[in-house]
Amino acid sequence: MSWLAGHEKHGHDESDNLGVDWVLRYEFGDIDQAQAISEFRTLIHDLTEAGLRVQVRHGHGSALLVFIRVPRDHLGKMVHQSRIKDWLFGIIHTLPSGDENTIASAETPAEEIRSVYHAVTWRKELGGAGITPKFGKWKNITASFPLHDRDACSELLSKWNRKTNLTVEDLDAIRALFGEKVAFYFAFIHCYSLFLVVPAAMGIVGWWFLGPYSTIYGSALVVWCIVFVEFWKIRETDLRVRWNVKGVDQLKVNRSQYQWEKEVKDPISGQVSQTFPGWKQFLRQMLLVPFASVASVALGTLIVVTFASEVFISEVYNGPLKGYLEFVPTILFSLSLPAITSFLTGIATRLTDYENYRTQDLYDLAQTQKTFVMHFITSFLPTILTAYVYVPFGHAIVPHLDILRRVGINTASHKDFEVDTSRFQAEVIYLSMTAQVFSFAEEIVLPYVKHVLWQKWRNYREHKAGLTRQRSFSKATDLLLIDAPEESFFLRRIRGEADADEYKVEEDILEMCVQFGYLALFGVAWPLVPLGFLLNNWLEVRGDFFKLTLECQRPPPIRADSIGPCLLGLDFLAWMGTLSTAAIVHLYRGPMAEVHLSSLLLTVFIAEQVYLGIRFTASTAIQKIFSDALRREEASRYAVRKSFLEMNQSRHGGPDSPSRVRQRVRFHERVNVYSSDTASPDGSPSPTSEQPQDEVLRGSDREAEFWEMRECDTADAGVKLIRALSGGKGGGEIKEVKHA
Amino acid sequence: MSWLAGHEKHGHDESDNLGVDWVLRYEFGDIDQAQAISEFRTLIHDLTEAGLRVQVRHGHGSALLVFIRVPRDHLGKMVHQSRIKDWLFGIIHTLPSGDENTIASAETPAEEIRSVYHAVTWRKELGGAGITPKFGKWKNITASFPLHDRDACSELLSKWNRKTNLTVEDLDAIRALFGEKVAFYFAFIHCYSLFLVVPAAMGIVGWWFLGPYSTIYGSALVVWCIVFVEFWKIRETDLRVRWNVKGVDQLKVNRSQYQWEKEVKDPISGQVSQTFPGWKQFLRQMLLVPFASVASVALGTLIVVTFASEVFISEVYNGPLKGYLEFVPTILFSLSLPAITSFLTGIATRLTDYENYRTQDLYDLAQTQKTFVMHFITSFLPTILTAYVYVPFGHAIVPHLDILRRVGINTASHKDFEVDTSRFQAEVIYLSMTAQVFSFAEEIVLPYVKHVLWQKWRNYREHKAGLTRQRSFSKATDLLLIDAPEESFFLRRIRGEADADEYKVEEDILEMCVQFGYLALFGVAWPLVPLGFLLNNWLEVRGDFFKLTLECQRPPPIRADSIGPCLLGLDFLAWMGTLSTAAIVHLYRGPMAEVHLSSLLLTVFIAEQVYLGIRFTASTAIQKIFSDALRREEASRYAVRKSFLEMNQSRHGGPDSPSRVRQRVRFHERVNVYSSDTASPDGSPSPTSEQPQDEVLRGSDREAEFWEMRECDTADAGVKLIRALSGGKGGGEIKEVKHA
Repeated sequence: MSWLAGHEKHGHDESDNLGVDWVLRYEFGDIDQAQAISEFRTLIHDLTEAGLRVQVRHGHGSALLVFIRVPRDHLGKMVHQSRIKDWLFGIIHTLPSGDENTIASAETPAEEIRSVYHAVTWRKELGGAGITPKFGKWKNITASFPLHDRDACSELLSKWNRKTNLTVEDLDAIRALFGEKVAFYFAFIHCYSLFLVVPAAMGIVGWWFLGPYSTIYGSALVVWCIVFVEFWKIRETDLRVRWNVKGVDQLKVNRSQYQWEKEVKDPISGQVSQTFPGWKQFLRQMLLVPFASVASVALGTLIVVTFASEVFISEVYNGPLKGYLEFVPTILFSLSLPAITSFLTGIATRLTDYENYRTQDLYDLAQTQKTFVMHFITSFLPTILTAYVYVPFGHAIVPHLDILRRVGINTASHKDFEVDTSRFQAEVIYLSMTAQVFSFAEEIVLPYVKHVLWQKWRNYREHKAGLTRQRSFSKATDLLLIDAPEESFFLRRIRGEADADEYKVEEDILEMCVQFGYLALFGVAWPLVPLGFLLNNWLEVRGDFFKLTLECQRPPPIRADSIGPCLLGLDFLAWMGTLSTAAIVHLYRGPMAEVHLSSLLLTVFIAEQVYLGIRFTASTAIQKIFSDALRREEASRYAVRKSFLEMNQSRHGGPDSPSRVRQRVRFHERVNVYSSDTASPDGSPSPTSEQPQDEVLRGSDREAEFWEMRECDTADAGVKLIRALSGGKGGGEIKEVKHA
Repeated sequence: MSWLAGHEKHGHDESDNLGVDWVLRYEFGDIDQAQAISEFRTLIHDLTEAGLRVQVRHGHGSALLVFIRVPRDHLGKMVHQSRIKDWLFGIIHTLPSGDENTIASAETPAEEIRSVYHAVTWRKELGGAGITPKFGKWKNITASFPLHDRDACSELLSKWNRKTNLTVEDLDAIRALFGEKVAFYFAFIHCYSLFLVVPAAMGIVGWWFLGPYSTIYGSALVVWCIVFVEFWKIRETDLRVRWNVKGVDQLKVNRSQYQWEKEVKDPISGQVSQTFPGWKQFLRQMLLVPFASVASVALGTLIVVTFASEVFISEVYNGPLKGYLEFVPTILFSLSLPAITSFLTGIATRLTDYENYRTQDLYDLAQTQKTFVMHFITSFLPTILTAYVYVPFGHAIVPHLDILRRVGINTASHKDFEVDTSRFQAEVIYLSMTAQVFSFAEEIVLPYVKHVLWQKWRNYREHKAGLTRQRSFSKATDLLLIDAPEESFFLRRIRGEADADEYKVEEDILEMCVQFGYLALFGVAWPLVPLGFLLNNWLEVRGDFFKLTLECQRPPPIRADSIGPCLLGLDFLAWMGTLSTAAIVHLYRGPMAEVHLSSLLLTVFIAEQVYLGIRFTASTAIQKIFSDALRREEASRYAVRKSFLEMNQSRHGGPDSPSRVRQRVRFHERVNVYSSDTASPDGSPSPTSEQPQDEVLRGSDREAEFWEMRECDTADAGVKLIRALSGGKGGGEIKEVKHA
């Protein structure tokens, strides 16, 4: 994979972010110029009012890029305030030292960017600029993202290429760069892949000596699945403590879409909270049941029809064009699936909106739950049908499909018909090998190729447009339209990032859950399944990181204390996997005709009790054995409090200097030049008194140049650009003179 | 129940504890005098070395009562230190104000007594006197308990008699008097009884309209059981927050019996902890499996044999003495059960010892688990046998019992034999009505009567002995042997408390669990079961409080954050109850002969899935709906931190005065005279500078008199008493001149 890293080796200047903290893209292609100008002026006004510095450049097409920089003293204050808030909500246990004017330096880039994110998105009452992209009055802001730290990313990626296995330090590094929510995904895939080694090894042995449908291999697989899920729960708790995110859900601010019913002022704390009754929300959530039913029926019918037609054509039909007709149902299914899925996703989104969650986290969680239901049906139902309907009952059902004979068309005699019992295994092999490769290509390689080609085509078009329509505006506007040579490469990169997709970590987690589901439900049919998954995941973890850093916008470093609703999904899949494995072994081990329904039922019933027993034992044992790690973490927390107490007692009051225990995560001194450690020797950060004007000088000269334009000019510059760009609307594309 | 309260109405003097914090009973009946004297001197030395004040009086028989008082300034320091420790372990979130010499006043009597408990029992390194009753060198200390607060108890009991339902304030009061562990039991029985109202009402309707074995009533009952268990989990979390005991397990000190394998010094905190590997403990715990098997087989065999003989005699045998012989198996069973149970308990205790738990809490928890297994077998197996073996298979099995006919004895013709299908219902009715009354009488009334009679008999005997053997010792010893008139009533009361049983809250919790089990497993057979239980519990909660306050020693106010392993038991019983209810309804609804095994299996299998579904829904819904209470608690925590922060910031350092938010729980100012509120107006406790000598004067004159004897005299007085009492060993009883 060295080509990935090689791709990243560009010069120092190219990866410099010029001190830009955050970028907004304002698109005005669909609205008229006057409205655009007024909206843009409001935007700049709101941002500067919130104490942020702004610069504007043109984007691709009718779009402006607004570059935001939070002055370092303001950012330091926000970091400190955020830590105070953490303490108030009991996330951290030591009160950060200092008063309300203390300027703290962030421990990780993620902490810094999180405060920037708050400064941009929080409501004005909370001290932010209140910019909510794609919603309400800001619906023309189509992108809002921090900039990638190219150097750190490429260093991490090349580091990973040199070793087979990630370490906890790598996870810490991801957390430091992208926040806990993303880090939890990588921790999960890492933990899961490590665990996969066991069934992969068992699988090789089982494949050689036992063959498919082995009771021993099946039991081992079931135990492994349950143990893994229980272990991951503990691991999650462990990471939660390590990353100090236990209970972060509660301190999240309200979504702007949240409709509260009454404001409750707490009689003791005087804290005003907007509440929406829990029972009402629960009742609304109950709509998930009809939704899941409708989704199941819709998708289920589609799948059953496809499946039946496919079976009919391949097994019964013997007429002309059989070779081509065989593929028709699958093609039709694949074509109609996106439409149906997007229709259902639309309903799901409206349901989630209706459920009215207070925070974005809860909203995402509820949405993921619904996506999980749909994924579950589309991913597992076809194979379930093969395993439990087609193979066992095929000889009874398939002849009924034989309607064509009645209308006189020549078909194969159904005396000849015999169920293809290997079909189930063939499907499982396909799922664990071919499908994984395809999905990797579809997820990572294809978008990359598409992205590169699209970029090339646009550059070519813009170049052409620029040549034909030069010198059509005033000299001043023209200067705005042409990138300064020293910014050119930087702006090209940012325009690319603005066009990139948002990274949705939930989708990646879901993908892993579905993979786990395949293994748990059908793994017993072919012992090499885990080996295939293991190899796939080795690539997947690197591919996902590649996607995250090169194909997507940098996600806001949101905190989370779990992988979310997928945990529940894992539990469900482990349970279902136990029943399924028991049933498959029972059905497929011997001749199918000899299987009695009551004995099958007994097997499944016993399997369920075994599942409950193993889960209980595993969770007890794992908690017992691995609680050492947690205890150690607790001990270090204890140590922090203890040292705080000692300091406090020796000074008799004044908790000014809790000693720092955790190390900062630094990638390059240069990258973090803004948050350089201003702490005085005794550990307390000394207040920085520099003015915003001086402060930019601490960066490079290039940064100073970029930021020297005054705020009032920014609004004017933007307005000029809007006029220029929307004036040239229709065939008009802006010119971009290459200095690269 | 006013007679209970009436019993308590004694004078002011009678309920005065004379400033005694703790009492130890030292028995020397079985050892020789020299050893006793040396042991006693060590005891007094250890106690005074730990800074405690002691007084000695004689007890019943060859026993001394050592009265302990912790000087108020020492106690205040211990309370403060304990709070600091709570903060260090993250139990409370605000650092208590003050330095290492701060004297805090306890918020509740329980907090005060807990510190006294620590002062007496903790190892010397931790600042205690290291007195571990009945263990090691202190195995002759046969009782160790704080004194009851008679006034507060009788006030609470009479308050309860005036109302039907407890409130959360009553639970707070129990917590304040007896600590969280006991309070959790009362909270549980309270919550459970309130919940019982629902099935009791359903039961009356069901009994009138539906009759037994109704599908509707059965389903409702199952749902109720699951909902109750899930609700209790939330309620427990709620109380945990309310009582500030979240996570108290970890700060408990080691048991003296704990054998650690290595001492680990934490590299960061420098905290030394003694560890024992988790996996080793888990392996040792796995011995529970053979234990449970052996216990099941032993008890099971006994029960099956009893059951079979009983059935045989009542249904098959028709010879002479049938009327008497029918009772023989049950009587034999009842007679042998205690021996077998105590044998099994012995094994269980040795197992638990071997499992080597660090804290007493964990030890008790493990022991309760084993007791639960035994209780489960003895309580449920007979009824399970009736329901699932005797009634369905009776017609096939009972004739085989007919061995007597073969040996020629006259028996009823087994043509006449018919299974008594109402036997199951009759047993359930017995369990829910008669057995509950019996157990109440056995648990509360019988011990009380026994206690009163025993006391009367002993008083009579001692009076007689005193008359015959007066003036047999020196004048000084004699003065020690004869109670001072002003202490006489007090000493008589304490001697009674020293002889009383220890209160084992686990047993009471277990009793309620078993009751819940009857309801969940067999309740469908007779819809009035919950009504019977409801009435019983109304009495039970008062009876248990009566037992706790009048028949038992006051338990040390130990903290706990749950009802312990019984929670797991409840989960298990709700699960088992679902399967059992489904099976019973399926079996008994129609004619038994028409039931097929496969359809029964299907019913049970479906019931299990329904159970899993309902449990998941119930737990989600309850968390959603009742999380408001938790959120409110969190808000008040937030408020505490917030006010702390504001104070801190306004002072610029020095977290001296977190404002007190919670109210103290006070019963009588007089009762809590030692912990009188010394807080200065700004909320911070002002250090009390009084000397121990002055300090006792703050109590009544009677207290001053009691404590005026110096510590060095105490040892001598004890030695004299030992000589006097062990000299008079054999027929010797001490005299007690009545002044009452």
